[in-house]
Amino acid sequence: MVKIDISGAKEFFGPTGPDFSKVSNAHRTLFERSGEGAEYTGWLELPERVKAGELKAILSAAARIRGNSEALVVIGIGGSYLGAKAAIDLLRSPNYNMKKKDTPDVFFAGNGVSPAAISEIIELIGDRDFTVNVISKSGGTLEPALSFRVFKALLEKKYGAAGAKRRIIATTDAQRGILHDTAVSEGWERFIVPNDVGGRFSVLSAVGLLPMAVAGIDIEKVLNCAVRELHDLDLRSSENPAWIYAGVRQHLYGLGRQIEILACFEPSFRFMAEWWKQLFGESEGKNGIGIYPASVEFSADLHSMGQFIQDGPRRLMETVVSFEDDGAELKVPFELRDRDGLNYLAGVQFGEVQRIVTKAVAGAHIKGDVPNIAITASRRDEEGFAELVCFFEMSCALSAYVSGVNPFNQPGVEAYKKNMFKMLQERE
Amino acid sequence: MVKIDISGAKEFFGPTGPDFSKVSNAHRTLFERSGEGAEYTGWLELPERVKAGELKAILSAAARIRGNSEALVVIGIGGSYLGAKAAIDLLRSPNYNMKKKDTPDVFFAGNGVSPAAISEIIELIGDRDFTVNVISKSGGTLEPALSFRVFKALLEKKYGAAGAKRRIIATTDAQRGILHDTAVSEGWERFIVPNDVGGRFSVLSAVGLLPMAVAGIDIEKVLNCAVRELHDLDLRSSENPAWIYAGVRQHLYGLGRQIEILACFEPSFRFMAEWWKQLFGESEGKNGIGIYPASVEFSADLHSMGQFIQDGPRRLMETVVSFEDDGAELKVPFELRDRDGLNYLAGVQFGEVQRIVTKAVAGAHIKGDVPNIAITASRRDEEGFAELVCFFEMSCALSAYVSGVNPFNQPGVEAYKKNMFKMLQERE
Repeated sequence: MVKIDISGAKEFFGPTGPDFSKVSNAHRTLFERSGEGAEYTGWLELPERVKAGELKAILSAAARIRGNSEALVVIGIGGSYLGAKAAIDLLRSPNYNMKKKDTPDVFFAGNGVSPAAISEIIELIGDRDFTVNVISKSGGTLEPALSFRVFKALLEKKYGAAGAKRRIIATTDAQRGILHDTAVSEGWERFIVPNDVGGRFSVLSAVGLLPMAVAGIDIEKVLNCAVRELHDLDLRSSENPAWIYAGVRQHLYGLGRQIEILACFEPSFRFMAEWWKQLFGESEGKNGIGIYPASVEFSADLHSMGQFIQDGPRRLMETVVSFEDDGAELKVPFELRDRDGLNYLAGVQFGEVQRIVTKAVAGAHIKGDVPNIAITASRRDEEGFAELVCFFEMSCALSAYVSGVNPFNQPGVEAYKKNMFKMLQERE
Repeated sequence: MVKIDISGAKEFFGPTGPDFSKVSNAHRTLFERSGEGAEYTGWLELPERVKAGELKAILSAAARIRGNSEALVVIGIGGSYLGAKAAIDLLRSPNYNMKKKDTPDVFFAGNGVSPAAISEIIELIGDRDFTVNVISKSGGTLEPALSFRVFKALLEKKYGAAGAKRRIIATTDAQRGILHDTAVSEGWERFIVPNDVGGRFSVLSAVGLLPMAVAGIDIEKVLNCAVRELHDLDLRSSENPAWIYAGVRQHLYGLGRQIEILACFEPSFRFMAEWWKQLFGESEGKNGIGIYPASVEFSADLHSMGQFIQDGPRRLMETVVSFEDDGAELKVPFELRDRDGLNYLAGVQFGEVQRIVTKAVAGAHIKGDVPNIAITASRRDEEGFAELVCFFEMSCALSAYVSGVNPFNQPGVEAYKKNMFKMLQERE
């Protein structure tokens, strides 16, 4: 499990510390499936189910793609995109596509309608062999549907109608929907978006796992660790890090801390923060309440948002994610003339410098009256990823229940869709 | 000049519309150099000064780098990094380094101490020829100084001490500081970080212009347009888009809208939003006040933060940036069987779809009680970039003066630095 340190928020507690009774109730509600949205709590068993079910087929499809494709185009939006993108950035690299490697490039399309962005993926694929993984529960969402038209046409032009069919994989509803029906009638390989798991909780289903496996991530390791984590996080005690995180952030929200900044010192974490924003923003931001989830990348943003954090309105809480062991080795070089005066650090690992900077920043922000929550995962690898995913999913469900909302619906997302389809249809 | 449309915020005004008298006073304060921080208003003449001064030398250095290097490593943090990164992403591509092109790759280092991130740049450069542009006013900031040690050592190993000297360019203070003194004594080529321009206003100095020129951006065009823009933005009237933006956002802040979300439908805009966050966050977030600057990328984030925007606490305002003409051509393909039911859009340009989606989203959010400000730049090119930079810089200065703070200092950034140097020196 991740470690959590809330000593940087202790000024904000009463003498007995945070009160976890509401989290305890939320925990019971979640596990007894007695709360709102209980029909979407399948993510609690998801890793086990996938291990017993689709895992082999996912691994085999991934191996086939690695064998016959130099690029994979993943078409999806929201939860059908952020989890895999976050995992590949964090575990492989934000520069994954630029690196020399023996796995295909992975491009994400369908999360917008920018002609420049779509055209650029076509340009970057060039004349290389590629496969398309289209991910949509219904098939009716505009952005992925339009991108899918483009890349399907490209496949058909390149491989013919029959060849294209072997290079389309649909991750969609098990029984119904436009994409399901099309996939069945066209004979595309299919994977399942489970009915009892919402998009933002779906990264450990085929939705996230297939692209991750294509990129060379050991998804069996991810799942094994996730099974253990979800079991361990069913700890009914105030020692449970998910209880602590959920309880403390709701406590701070009650004190007027309306914005939570998720920070990490690893640039590869950028899209984990985006995944986290969807998870918490979409689960909690409803009925006129919710903590606004924002993110920063340190040290970079200490020289941009740092001023605001230190000195702006006292409405922020800060959560910092670190990894115990990053694995990367790099020492500060010695300089004969020591013009920058930093020879006292010569020979020191950058990782060690990073640990000190992390502490120094937390200290400065705490002194500046920003409560600080420190979360530490083991390593920046498959296990650390599974730890963070399970921890945040569990905390999020608990936190939303504590605040009194249904963690698993998203009624507000429909508003723009309705407006959009109406305007598109009425287009002159 | 950019166009601004505040009709999406009109429900929040009184019958006579927004009151621009405070903005008018701020305008006078700014141009008469009579306010706090007046010594940092050099950005108002910066494009003209650079045209008359360093432009030729910048162009010539850029041409030399393009001739002898396949990669440029730009070392800087905060304002010494975000402007050039934003420009290259927006005008060339967020995938610039992946593209086939006749200009060098550009890597940004020194904005953190992650050993994985630094090592990866070394790996990606491989055995290719490269140049280092180190950007720091003082030379004393830890993160860029440590990265500079690494890449300087790499240059010296590859080209020898004399060869390395010809491949280091220092952008720094004109007269003093560690980096200035080192550059003079080593004989490195130098460019200037002006004394009267803060980091977050420095993109149109050598700080931003040299990396931009290396990446093939026409910086003369940028500067010419910026000179015109800054002249036009000295319009003392409520027709001035910078007055409107500054006035409306401060008005909304007064009504409890504490968070501003900057949105764009172009993925290439992501780092312009980061640049904007630094500009506004660092200028306004002080003395316990300030609008929290956040950003989203649409459509992607409509399926993550969309729920929160539509249905969370009514504390948000939304500013959407669009481009009148993106230039990219891509049509929705026709599908014989029309399984997704989207043939009514077949043959339509994606750009046209994007315009409709933009309107539909604004409509949904306005209906959801989120005030909307629409900003439109001409094209996603050098002129559009200059329009946006000058517009946001001017609005930011006005807005900060309206709120009663010094737009040009950043006292809070020092806190973490002091803490950090102390802890690094006391390291066991």
